Amino acid sequence: MDDCIFCKIANGEMDTQFLYEDETVVVFNDIQPKADTHILVVSKKHIPSLIHLNDEDTTLMGHMVQMLPKMASKLGINSFRTIVNTGAESGQEVDHLHFHLLSGNLRPFG
Amino acid sequence: MDDCIFCKIANGEMDTQFLYEDETVVVFNDIQPKADTHILVVSKKHIPSLIHLNDEDTTLMGHMVQMLPKMASKLGINSFRTIVNTGAESGQEVDHLHFHLLSGNLRPFG
Repeated sequence: MDDCIFCKIANGEMDTQFLYEDETVVVFNDIQPKADTHILVVSKKHIPSLIHLNDEDTTLMGHMVQMLPKMASKLGINSFRTIVNTGAESGQEVDHLHFHLLSGNLRPFG
Repeated sequence: MDDCIFCKIANGEMDTQFLYEDETVVVFNDIQPKADTHILVVSKKHIPSLIHLNDEDTTLMGHMVQMLPKMASKLGINSFRTIVNTGAESGQEVDHLHFHLLSGNLRPFG
């Protein structure tokens, strides 16, 4: 998706500092943090939101969930909130699937 | 887990009305709703939280994520928030992995 900011970030076009990267996901800090720690786990594949998932995406979704405790451990966090917004009404701001991981002084969201 | 309320619910010991059930998950309404719609997707397997996942749980996690848009569709919802709390500090109240799906007039959480 040429005009998708998260595709550009995932493709390395934005010089984003990745906290983690593999074949299917990238992880980086949210630029508008709503907690002391606020990172995003983002699929490299352009999927607009959870309602756009196909059956073939099950393994990718499992991997994205598994990334959450792995990143928390890496960052020394043992309690955190995961949020996935689907649709603008829920607070989704970028139409490319991403999991928020937040910890410490959480502020209202969406 | 004998003393786990979500294990009892998943085992059918609590006469809970399931919105959905299959071999690995059950879905039911949160008894203290924090939005117009507030349902829980709960694994039948007792996993205390995301930080207790094993590699073998990847498919289950993928399935739980896939359940979210499927349930939203079933309920006629096209915008929703998914929350997974990990650890008491984040607002986790039951030590058995569950995904919250919320939609409509979301109230503060945790």
